[in-house]
Amino acid sequence: MQNTYAIGIDVGGTNTDLGLVRDDSKIVSRRSLPTGNYALIEPYVQDIIDQIKEMLAEGDPEAGVTSIRMDELTGIGMGAPNGNFYTGCVEWAPNLPIRGLLDFQKEFGKHTSIPFVLSNDANAAAYGEYVYGGAKGMEHFIMITLGTGVGSGIVVDGRLVHGSTGTAGELGHNILIPNGRRCTCGRKGCLETYTSARGIVQTYIELRNEKGVPQEAPRMKGWITADIEDSYITSKMIGDAANAGDPLAKETYCMVANWLGLACANACTFSAPEAIFLMGGPTKVGEPLLQPLREAFEENLLNIYKGRCEIRMSELATNEVAILGAAALIKLKK
Amino acid sequence: MQNTYAIGIDVGGTNTDLGLVRDDSKIVSRRSLPTGNYALIEPYVQDIIDQIKEMLAEGDPEAGVTSIRMDELTGIGMGAPNGNFYTGCVEWAPNLPIRGLLDFQKEFGKHTSIPFVLSNDANAAAYGEYVYGGAKGMEHFIMITLGTGVGSGIVVDGRLVHGSTGTAGELGHNILIPNGRRCTCGRKGCLETYTSARGIVQTYIELRNEKGVPQEAPRMKGWITADIEDSYITSKMIGDAANAGDPLAKETYCMVANWLGLACANACTFSAPEAIFLMGGPTKVGEPLLQPLREAFEENLLNIYKGRCEIRMSELATNEVAILGAAALIKLKK
Repeated sequence: MQNTYAIGIDVGGTNTDLGLVRDDSKIVSRRSLPTGNYALIEPYVQDIIDQIKEMLAEGDPEAGVTSIRMDELTGIGMGAPNGNFYTGCVEWAPNLPIRGLLDFQKEFGKHTSIPFVLSNDANAAAYGEYVYGGAKGMEHFIMITLGTGVGSGIVVDGRLVHGSTGTAGELGHNILIPNGRRCTCGRKGCLETYTSARGIVQTYIELRNEKGVPQEAPRMKGWITADIEDSYITSKMIGDAANAGDPLAKETYCMVANWLGLACANACTFSAPEAIFLMGGPTKVGEPLLQPLREAFEENLLNIYKGRCEIRMSELATNEVAILGAAALIKLKK
Repeated sequence: MQNTYAIGIDVGGTNTDLGLVRDDSKIVSRRSLPTGNYALIEPYVQDIIDQIKEMLAEGDPEAGVTSIRMDELTGIGMGAPNGNFYTGCVEWAPNLPIRGLLDFQKEFGKHTSIPFVLSNDANAAAYGEYVYGGAKGMEHFIMITLGTGVGSGIVVDGRLVHGSTGTAGELGHNILIPNGRRCTCGRKGCLETYTSARGIVQTYIELRNEKGVPQEAPRMKGWITADIEDSYITSKMIGDAANAGDPLAKETYCMVANWLGLACANACTFSAPEAIFLMGGPTKVGEPLLQPLREAFEENLLNIYKGRCEIRMSELATNEVAILGAAALIKLKK
């Protein structure tokens, strides 16, 4: 059987990564553009198209393919913040340098007639997991992405939930704690304020202010010491400290796990997923998060779902998931 | 065009209501059985079948149909607590006198080979609204039923969400207030504990204990007076008092509206529905609930959904929705 190829494009605030993806989930070649260089959509898409043409001209040497024609591609998939599946537009994404309502569907249409599919980045990650990763064959699952913010993609009956607006699946803005922490969205108590990288740092700092750093910290390898200023602390640093046994860092991840476990249990009352997948920087801490998370999840889970949904880590490589996810979107039906 | 007919069966803890439903949403005839009379599934289903045969023999005189054969029916739909769409079984429903795992799919199969479809009662109500009511043509909406408990049915892409277990859509057991009121499910803070009939009464009693009944209550028509004991107070009584201007009753429904508005806003982050429909006794109070509910909903709604989802009342008659909803289930694809 002959290979098929798609293009996956991940639009980030800093970089735009794109890759030529073979149907067996191999990223054959990849490129990167600095998103910040573009103030307008036209030159941005023009440069993306030029990069795609370069990759196509190189072909897939490993598979003995010397070059690929644009019209041989199954399509171009793009994951972007605030990407709307129905309209093919990015709608006023606060983190992108190109402002306003960006009609990528139309702009790519000027260059090629192959299918173009857009969705938000977390939806793309979820669908990547479904097509290429650990969710293969699952008809009902949820992907939660922890990073600067918290995103989610929800799959029901094997289909990504886009909702009536094209922008469904924003569990990061589910209000977990009424009147809780102030969120960048202008409301209070969103999941994101507790389980994003920023939320994790805030929890650590609050704990440190309340309890003080343990006296033995300077003598313990990997613990966070009192002389490190708040503004230097990252979720990665807290994760490393938790793995080194720092009790404040461990307690931080326990609290994060309690919040996330509650959110995951609540999500089950909606779509009764087979699994909830997690990905993103803060999940890399491993057991200091996962062990209390599984406990909190089971504790908060309604009886009828107990033992019927598991928390799992994304099986896609961190540096591949965004491109694979975007390419997977091509397989979605409009 | 010739009419088609289906049977809708609503299994309640007290009564089992069934009806012969014409495709234009007319309930041609109906029957009722006392659920409590049955300890075993076999005689229960036998009696239901006998009642169906009676209704079929009577036909649909209004449409000039003298009798209908069982094999002319499009199917039998049943809404029941803990009804599992995938298995056709009712799974250990605490409020039913017939105990255990009840295989209705198999039991009805002994009597007839026409399609049989089972789902839970709130799902049936949602699908009834889709097929016969105000949600016609909506691909994404949610039905929330307020009663003794709080149930929900979720429609995504025109399909009822049943999830991996067959029991998805239990928003009544979404934990709204962490460590909040104790719920019958054994956990704490479920939406149901705040917005069910019982939750409404609890809120009123708490307010009354805290603030006391207004001095002028005995002179005001329809207000709840201090001499009425807690155990006599119902959500209906509080609703009537709210409409008569009783400030404690009004405050009670304001609080209920705030909780329900938050829950509805949270539901939007999941499936971005076009509308959230409400039904059930406590919603009949009208404006004392609906006006603060719409305010709380908009206030708690994430920006991208503002103005794109409305709170609406079910358009089906209270005494018809359960039978119509059950009959509508026949139109679901497995």
